[in-house]
Amino acid sequence: MGKKLAVVAFGGNALLRGDQKGTIEEQEANVYDTCKHLVNLIKKDYEIIIGHGNGPQVGNVLLQHEAGQKIYGIPKMPMDICVAETQGAIGLMIEQQLRNVLAKNGINKNIITIVTEVLVDKDDFAFKNPTKPVGPFYSREEADKLTHDNGWVFHEDPRGRGWRRVVASPKPMKVNNREIIERLAREGNIVITVGGGGIPAYMKTKDELVGIDAVIDKDLASAHLAGNIKADEFYILTDVPQVYVNFNKPDQKSLGQVKADEIKKYLDEGHFAEGSMAPKVRASLHFIKKGGKSCTITMADKLGNGQAGTTILKS
Amino acid sequence: MGKKLAVVAFGGNALLRGDQKGTIEEQEANVYDTCKHLVNLIKKDYEIIIGHGNGPQVGNVLLQHEAGQKIYGIPKMPMDICVAETQGAIGLMIEQQLRNVLAKNGINKNIITIVTEVLVDKDDFAFKNPTKPVGPFYSREEADKLTHDNGWVFHEDPRGRGWRRVVASPKPMKVNNREIIERLAREGNIVITVGGGGIPAYMKTKDELVGIDAVIDKDLASAHLAGNIKADEFYILTDVPQVYVNFNKPDQKSLGQVKADEIKKYLDEGHFAEGSMAPKVRASLHFIKKGGKSCTITMADKLGNGQAGTTILKS
Repeated sequence: MGKKLAVVAFGGNALLRGDQKGTIEEQEANVYDTCKHLVNLIKKDYEIIIGHGNGPQVGNVLLQHEAGQKIYGIPKMPMDICVAETQGAIGLMIEQQLRNVLAKNGINKNIITIVTEVLVDKDDFAFKNPTKPVGPFYSREEADKLTHDNGWVFHEDPRGRGWRRVVASPKPMKVNNREIIERLAREGNIVITVGGGGIPAYMKTKDELVGIDAVIDKDLASAHLAGNIKADEFYILTDVPQVYVNFNKPDQKSLGQVKADEIKKYLDEGHFAEGSMAPKVRASLHFIKKGGKSCTITMADKLGNGQAGTTILKS
Repeated sequence: MGKKLAVVAFGGNALLRGDQKGTIEEQEANVYDTCKHLVNLIKKDYEIIIGHGNGPQVGNVLLQHEAGQKIYGIPKMPMDICVAETQGAIGLMIEQQLRNVLAKNGINKNIITIVTEVLVDKDDFAFKNPTKPVGPFYSREEADKLTHDNGWVFHEDPRGRGWRRVVASPKPMKVNNREIIERLAREGNIVITVGGGGIPAYMKTKDELVGIDAVIDKDLASAHLAGNIKADEFYILTDVPQVYVNFNKPDQKSLGQVKADEIKKYLDEGHFAEGSMAPKVRASLHFIKKGGKSCTITMADKLGNGQAGTTILKS
């Protein structure tokens, strides 16, 4: 106890790169590499909670369910179950690779992967305006049928590949088992949780918790948890070392240490791409707003090197 | 602390019955029903650890991976990842339904689902004689190719459906995070763990833990855990109220309270079917051998009714 607590959100790259097919060998190698760098933080005496994305993996699970129904008649499962499947699979990969990295470094720590539900508000505006594309592409006729049968919402793919379901991306309201996650971590165990932003659920009645088809932003879910448990630091791992203003323009400038107010201004000015850096900056600001001291957005290999990433500080 | 600790192994029926297709509605209804009965034990002041099977579910996952590769080219994952997927999905189902049952009963307890690896011995004789059929049926040519490429072992289906992979069913040697599982349970939390018998793994070197394609018997994994944490009682839930000798014969006799020595004799005499009651009796005997006081094999709806099941006592 008394040590510093860091929440680290592993990005897609930590698991699967865009140029890879997604074999188990590729994913395990990526995870091992990220975990190698995470040791730098552990050696600096941080207790660690790991959140992680699941974009490519849950995409694959949705397609596998679709294919399993077509070929074998296996009933497709709803999104919350699919997210739970990825929490199991990705949690195992991280737990196992990190276990091996720790053993090589002579560090003795338990690693616990917790299947984690995150509660959302059914009245969240996001449910009125679903925007997050998930699952396979369908023909117009198939999409119409699914809308009729299940009430699914579809958008036409701008690249002409067909119609794709969109689901809401509501705000995380409560991480189930938050107290236990915090306690296990503060006692020196590494906890893997809120995978894929958490399994989305909501209180249908006072007594009834049910799953819901939605995708919670994984950085925001980790930020929410980090803020609530008063983590000292929050790290968002991505595929660039720093955050940039005027990204990809002649006057591109990287941000080192930056105050929350300043980066909020850049965010409002549209410097950061939606679906990429903007949600990460928003998650950082959420953590700072909840009382967090500093949030760092960087690549895994810069972990534990305070100067290398973009560090957002309280204004 | 100081209350009694029970490990309860949910059987296949608790999740999915043989006559069902496996829709989410069916599975949730089954789980809700089992959880309703589990409340009887909780009201009797037992702390609870839940283990569970995953037979039909991991079967579906293997087929979904097969189908996903065929239609979408998604790389299939190895068995340990598939088991992890089912731990996520089934753990979520049990956690959510039990949460709702507890809320309806005004019981306030945390429920934590832990993705759990179970270590096996690579030199276990089971690896020299794999017997557990998994995954889809293949043609002779496909099977030969998979044997050549991956070293898989196949048996021809006696009902002529083709060739099917068989994997080892090794003994559980160590449940990872056992101390944390025990402590959380003894503190009053309900822990869901060792799903599907646990995610099979072994120590490849002193420092390297790796997954392995195998299926650990789920009742034996729960028995192993129950024995090691000195649980007071161990329950195996199945689809019959009691264990029978001379099952389905004119002189069929149900067993009520029975000493370990006596049921061991029946086991040796071949009264219990392999793949059905025999492994449950073996798991019970394992628990008793490890110092357990009593093990009950029964249906969920008899839980908390001491007279209704078959209770195996120390000799």
